[in-house]
Amino acid sequence: MTPRTSVLITGSELIRGGRRDSNGPFLAEELTRLGLEPSSIRIVGDDPAELEPAIREGLETDLLVLSGGLGPTHDDRTVELLARAAGLEAVVVGELEQEIEGVSRRIAERLGRSYAEFAEGVRKQATVPAGGRVIGIAGTAPGLVVETGRAVAVVLPGPPPELRRLWRAALEDEAVQGVLARAVVPERRVLRVYGVSESAVARALAEAGGEPEGVQATICAHAGEIWVELFGDGEELAGTLRDALGGSVFAEDDRPVEELVLDAARGRGLSVAAAESCTGGLVAARLSSVPGSSDVFRGGVVAYDNDVKRAQLRVSEQTLDARGAVSAETASEMALGAREALGADVAVSTTGIAGPGGGTPEKPVGLVYVHASGPGAELARELNLPGDREAVRRRATAAALHLLRELLAQIRHSPG
Amino acid sequence: MTPRTSVLITGSELIRGGRRDSNGPFLAEELTRLGLEPSSIRIVGDDPAELEPAIREGLETDLLVLSGGLGPTHDDRTVELLARAAGLEAVVVGELEQEIEGVSRRIAERLGRSYAEFAEGVRKQATVPAGGRVIGIAGTAPGLVVETGRAVAVVLPGPPPELRRLWRAALEDEAVQGVLARAVVPERRVLRVYGVSESAVARALAEAGGEPEGVQATICAHAGEIWVELFGDGEELAGTLRDALGGSVFAEDDRPVEELVLDAARGRGLSVAAAESCTGGLVAARLSSVPGSSDVFRGGVVAYDNDVKRAQLRVSEQTLDARGAVSAETASEMALGAREALGADVAVSTTGIAGPGGGTPEKPVGLVYVHASGPGAELARELNLPGDREAVRRRATAAALHLLRELLAQIRHSPG
Repeated sequence: MTPRTSVLITGSELIRGGRRDSNGPFLAEELTRLGLEPSSIRIVGDDPAELEPAIREGLETDLLVLSGGLGPTHDDRTVELLARAAGLEAVVVGELEQEIEGVSRRIAERLGRSYAEFAEGVRKQATVPAGGRVIGIAGTAPGLVVETGRAVAVVLPGPPPELRRLWRAALEDEAVQGVLARAVVPERRVLRVYGVSESAVARALAEAGGEPEGVQATICAHAGEIWVELFGDGEELAGTLRDALGGSVFAEDDRPVEELVLDAARGRGLSVAAAESCTGGLVAARLSSVPGSSDVFRGGVVAYDNDVKRAQLRVSEQTLDARGAVSAETASEMALGAREALGADVAVSTTGIAGPGGGTPEKPVGLVYVHASGPGAELARELNLPGDREAVRRRATAAALHLLRELLAQIRHSPG
Repeated sequence: MTPRTSVLITGSELIRGGRRDSNGPFLAEELTRLGLEPSSIRIVGDDPAELEPAIREGLETDLLVLSGGLGPTHDDRTVELLARAAGLEAVVVGELEQEIEGVSRRIAERLGRSYAEFAEGVRKQATVPAGGRVIGIAGTAPGLVVETGRAVAVVLPGPPPELRRLWRAALEDEAVQGVLARAVVPERRVLRVYGVSESAVARALAEAGGEPEGVQATICAHAGEIWVELFGDGEELAGTLRDALGGSVFAEDDRPVEELVLDAARGRGLSVAAAESCTGGLVAARLSSVPGSSDVFRGGVVAYDNDVKRAQLRVSEQTLDARGAVSAETASEMALGAREALGADVAVSTTGIAGPGGGTPEKPVGLVYVHASGPGAELARELNLPGDREAVRRRATAAALHLLRELLAQIRHSPG
């Protein structure tokens, strides 16, 4: 049987909301990739009355990954409560204590404080459940692997970069590898579809005969795209869906659309720019988020004010007067203007009403024009996007990147 | 006693990672604001063997807020399992069935399908635990309030906008109000600090005598800032900390720094612009994310390529040659260039090495220059930022916005 796993995150600031946990999704993705989809991701505060039962419950699975609560203060109780829940003695590890003492002495010196203030915390952080293995140290907090007989518990620090580093170390641990060896990594395929509704994709799946024996199919909207994920032996079903959905299947891997755009431009020897009004920089931010984007992405103009549209992007006074800033004509002139001003081969533009204010009966909130312009090719789209300001901006950004992707697909060769 | 609450989110795509849940943090923030900090936020898939015990556990608290799994297909089992866990019969509500049928007939018509295909799903979605109250419909899924005798369960749909809408409806429900009436809304204060390390803030708290009786203090890094949150009667402690931390306390409310910047500019009658290299549009995106920002924010130039820095921002050839694109001088010329090109009173610039490539021994990954320029005032900073590409870009964006905030604080009056 596939081992059961669970993820437990502790942090009072996460229980109070506002701040989003990123460790749970990271660990869930890692575990799923390894064939160990977690049965539960749970967030609790540092109250022992909540944390200890949650640890006990997690220890009923085969692998419990715990994060947070490893600091030197009285609020940091993860290790102590894990020992208690596992029925293990908590013991001071001399070698570990020396290592943490070394780090703490350097901190004390830098802060101009006496080491004596730190000694108690050092002893606390060097105390681990009997038999626990230290897999590395983050600051002064050790990461641990603890075997309880029934379960393997991996204890990781809360700060995400440290958690990721010590997670990699945990994967080298013998007991963790023992659990991994019992996992079955599922075959996975993804078909990414754009420009077709989720229900049309669901219909295509139903008409393909639904899920064959041993295949699990999920359909999910994801950043303006529809993702069809097939787990198990989905090769035949993928073929049928590909035929049914035709050209709307644009990718079969997980790379973000901005990366697909940059690769397509690079392959054609074309440079890229953005001219943004309602998206306010989000298109440029996504293009520049890709490492190495600077060889293809030249830059952008965020033309929030009409003066900027005129001066930087040479949108004509006449167009702005007759059609308005939110119009197909303005979007077209913005894209062409960006190509000229920024010396780019292709450019995409956005102009629209993100809300909550600024809507009229003729031009309601959510109306957005996107336009992509390149050598010998133009694509334009009028969008009516649902949602609040953030949703409209995010959706318009996705639409602009997809329009750029489609434009580049039409341009088969490099110019000149 | 304050009622105990819990949040349970269901969705197999969330258990597989990659996708982050936003409903849990939203509900946690709402509940905390109402004095009902949840004891646990839990995410489980749609497997009944996991979902049913999680519901049972949630029903041991006074208020369980459940989201997801309300659709018409066999995977959507939340309501059925809630009825079973609560020991309530599942009954079809005639009036609700008619309402969902109406919606489904319109969908069937639009898709050109027979209504017969929908009938089973309609009956399923109109089936609720006996005594459950319908608080509204999202698509074809009803939101519910169910009383079990011991607990009150609120059942909400998974899509975040619908969840938020029906959550507001749930707050009007009598049973939910009964739980709310027993909650004690905690007094909360926040001191937001910038430019001081977390350990220095911790020291100031310790020197102030730590947490007085009845006050809970948390110190947390948050988007480049340090937030000190005081729950309970923290007025005196807040005063002591304010004195100790001096000018580094820049705000005592939760508004994002971009909103503080826009308000400061608006109050001084000044317009704002951004000139970005390494942040690639993120500064402009944050400024334009604020509703109503268009009266103050004129726009930005994303000058990724040096040609764009020269042509759009008039950074001199000489500066780029002698100092390089990543230099204090280039940052200064970019900010001044943005003021001129975009006709803005104040502007902020960023230039740096976000990595992972492009670093040298003299200019390593994480080196970023930010510069803010305004009428009669200039501020510049050299930063050495830790983390990966995303972290460097995010931190540089926060630093740029704070520099703009500090610059505006120096400009007391509107110009001219």
